[in-house]
Amino acid sequence: MQPEELIQGICDGKLRALAKAITLIESQRPEDQQATASILEAVLPRTGSSLRIGISGVPGAGKSTFIEAFGMYLLQQGKRVAVLAVDPSSQLSGGSILGDKTRMEELSRQECAFIRPSPSGETLGGVARKTRESMLLCEAYGFDVIIVETVGVGQSETAVASMVDFFLLLQLPGAGDELQGIKKGVMEIADGIVVNKADGDNVERARLAARQMENALHIMTPKSPSWTVPVELVSALHKSGMDLVWQMLQDYLEAMRASGEFEQKRKNQAVDWMWSTVMDNLKYAFSTHPKVAAALPELQRSVAEGVTTPGIAARKLLEVFRRPM
Amino acid sequence: MQPEELIQGICDGKLRALAKAITLIESQRPEDQQATASILEAVLPRTGSSLRIGISGVPGAGKSTFIEAFGMYLLQQGKRVAVLAVDPSSQLSGGSILGDKTRMEELSRQECAFIRPSPSGETLGGVARKTRESMLLCEAYGFDVIIVETVGVGQSETAVASMVDFFLLLQLPGAGDELQGIKKGVMEIADGIVVNKADGDNVERARLAARQMENALHIMTPKSPSWTVPVELVSALHKSGMDLVWQMLQDYLEAMRASGEFEQKRKNQAVDWMWSTVMDNLKYAFSTHPKVAAALPELQRSVAEGVTTPGIAARKLLEVFRRPM
Ligand SMILES: Nc1nc2c(ncn2[C@@H]2O[C@H](COP(=O)(O)OP(=O)(O)OP(=O)(O)O)[C@@H](O)[C@H]2O)c(=O)[nH]1
Ligand SMILES: Nc1nc2c(ncn2[C@@H]2O[C@H](COP(=O)(O)OP(=O)(O)OP(=O)(O)O)[C@@H](O)[C@H]2O)c(=O)[nH]1
Ligand SMILES: [Mg+2]
Ligand SMILES: [Mg+2]
Repeated sequence: MQPEELIQGICDGKLRALAKAITLIESQRPEDQQATASILEAVLPRTGSSLRIGISGVPGAGKSTFIEAFGMYLLQQGKRVAVLAVDPSSQLSGGSILGDKTRMEELSRQECAFIRPSPSGETLGGVARKTRESMLLCEAYGFDVIIVETVGVGQSETAVASMVDFFLLLQLPGAGDELQGIKKGVMEIADGIVVNKADGDNVERARLAARQMENALHIMTPKSPSWTVPVELVSALHKSGMDLVWQMLQDYLEAMRASGEFEQKRKNQAVDWMWSTVMDNLKYAFSTHPKVAAALPELQRSVAEGVTTPGIAARKLLEVFRRPM
Repeated sequence: MQPEELIQGICDGKLRALAKAITLIESQRPEDQQATASILEAVLPRTGSSLRIGISGVPGAGKSTFIEAFGMYLLQQGKRVAVLAVDPSSQLSGGSILGDKTRMEELSRQECAFIRPSPSGETLGGVARKTRESMLLCEAYGFDVIIVETVGVGQSETAVASMVDFFLLLQLPGAGDELQGIKKGVMEIADGIVVNKADGDNVERARLAARQMENALHIMTPKSPSWTVPVELVSALHKSGMDLVWQMLQDYLEAMRASGEFEQKRKNQAVDWMWSTVMDNLKYAFSTHPKVAAALPELQRSVAEGVTTPGIAARKLLEVFRRPM
C-alpha cells in the first residue's frame, strides 16, 4: 500500500492500514522511513486527544493480567483501547506481549482493542522511538486510551514515562524484605501505584505493602505540587479495583489540567524527544565515523586505566571527528 | 607562571602553584585551556590515591558546619583535606563556600586544609568539569581526602555523585511532613546518610527521621549488592559523631575494594566523563551552528505546539547541520 492509502485507511478506521503503517515504522529500510515520515506528518493533526498510560512492574507482578482486566473495564466504559509495549530485550520473533496474547485472551478478541508487541531493535532509543510513533498512529486511528507496557529492563521505565501522561507502577504484596526490590528511581517516576494480587491470603500483606509505600513516598519530594501519588489495592485476577484505578486517573487528569501541567508536560515531552533524537543521531554519527571508530577503543582503554584524562581523550576524538577526511 | 613551573610547584607541594593552576582551569581563555591540558596530562600519574567524598543536603542542613567539623576531625587523624564545590548558581564573585569561610573558620586557617569555592560558569556541565579537573590537581598535590560539596541545585547531585567514591547525604531531624522534601532521586544515589543536628531537643526527632529513612531505603533496590546504605546521627555543631562517619567510610571502602567495585566505579566514571565531554561538545557545536541556530526556535515551537513531530523536526535540523555551508 502507498503512504496515501495508509493515511486514508487510518483516518477511516481500517485496522489493517494501522497495522501496516506500524510495520513500516518498525522497518529498518530507508525508503520505509521516508514513507513513515510522510504518514506521521499527515496524521499529526488528528493526534493528541487520547489518554496515554504507562504501566510497569517487576516480572510476575501481574502486568499482563492487569492490562487484560483494566482493558476490559475500559471497553465496558465505551473506550477503545490500544496496548503497545517497550521491551528492548524482545527479539525479531516478536516481543513479550505477542506470546502473552494467551494471557490477554479476552482483550485480544475484542473489536475495540488493539494489541501490538514491542518493536524489536538493538537500542532502547530505537525501540522507544518506534513505540512513540506507533502511539501517534493509534491516536489518529481513534483509540481513546493507549496503554504502554514496559518490562522494566534497564532504563525502559524512564523511556516510557517520558511518552505517557500517567505512569502506573504495579507492586506485589509483601513487606520489608519481600518488598525490597523496587527498582532504583522507579518509585520516583510513578504517578500512581497499585498493589496487585490483593486477594485471598494476600490481603493483609497487600495492606502492609501499601502502607510502607505510602510512608516512603511521604518523605520524598512530590513530582508535582498538585498531586500526591496514591496507592490502591487491586486484584487483576479477580478483576477487582479497576474502578479505583480509573478514578485515580480521572483525579490525576483533573488536577493536572486545572494547573496547566498536563499541557506543559506534553509540550516538554515533545521537545525533549526532538533533542534526544538529535543527540542519538549525533552520537551515532560520531561513533561510526571511521577515524573515531579506529581511535576509540585505545583511547577509551587509556581513560579507564588512568593513563589519559577524560578531557584530553574527548578533545582528541573531537579533533579526529572534525578534521576533513 | 609557565605550565612547567606550575607542574613543578604542585608536585613540590607549593599551595600557590596549586591555586594558580586551578585558576587556569577556571579560565575561559583558549590559551589557558591549552596550558591546563598540559598540566593535567603531566600530573595524571600522581593522581588517584585520594579518597573522594561528595556531600549534599538541603540549604540549612548544616553542610558548611559539618564540613568544618569533619574536616577538623580528618586533620586530627593526620589527613590533608581539600574542599571543593559544585554550585552552578554561583556568581563570578565566588560561590557559596568563599562567603562561607566564616562558617569554616577553623578549617580555613589550617595549613593542611585547602578550601576553594565553586568555579563559576554558565552550565552545570562546565562547572562540574572544572571541579573534576581541580580535584585531580588537588590529588597530585597530595591531599588525602577531597570533599566536594554540592548545594543541591538541579542536577548538581548527580554530577557530584559521578565524580566521587562516596556520596554522603545530610538530612535534618524531623519526621513525616517535616521530612518531606528529600529531593527526587537523591536518596537513591546516596552511599551513606547522616541525620545532622541530633543534639538538644532534636535527638528524639533525629532518631525518628533515621528510622523512617531506613524503612524507605529498605524497600528500594540497593545500589550495590555489597553495601547497605547506613544512617547515622551526628551533631556538626557539637562536633560529635565524626568518628561514626569516618568508620562508615572505612567500612564502605573495605567492602567496595574487596568486591572490586571500587576500581570498576572509577573506571566507569572516567569513561562516562569522556563521553559526556564529547556529547556536550557535539551539542554545543550543533546548537551554535548558524543555520541550526536560525531554524531552531521556529522548529522547537512547532514541536511544542504539535504542528511538527519531534522526529521530523530532528531530521530537518540534522540535515541543516550536515549540509556544507
Ligand atoms: N492471586 C493473584 N494472582 C495474580 C494476579 N494477577 C496476576 N496473577 C498471577 O501472577 C502470575 C504472573 O502474572 P502476569 O500477568 O503474567 O505477570 P507479568 O507482570 O505480566 O509478568 P511478565 O510478563 O513475566 O513480566 C500469573 O500466574 C498470574 O495468574 C492477581 O491479582 N491475584
Ligand atoms: N543545633 C544544631 N545546629 C546546627 C548543626 N549544624 C549546623 N547547624 C546550624 O544550622 C544552620 C545552617 O548551617 P550551615 O552549616 O550553614 O548549613 P548549610 O547546609 O551549609 O546551608 P547552606 O550553605 O545555606 O546551603 C546554622 O545556623 C548552623 O549553626 C548541628 O549539628 N546542630
Ligand atoms: Mg507479562
Ligand atoms: Mg553552606
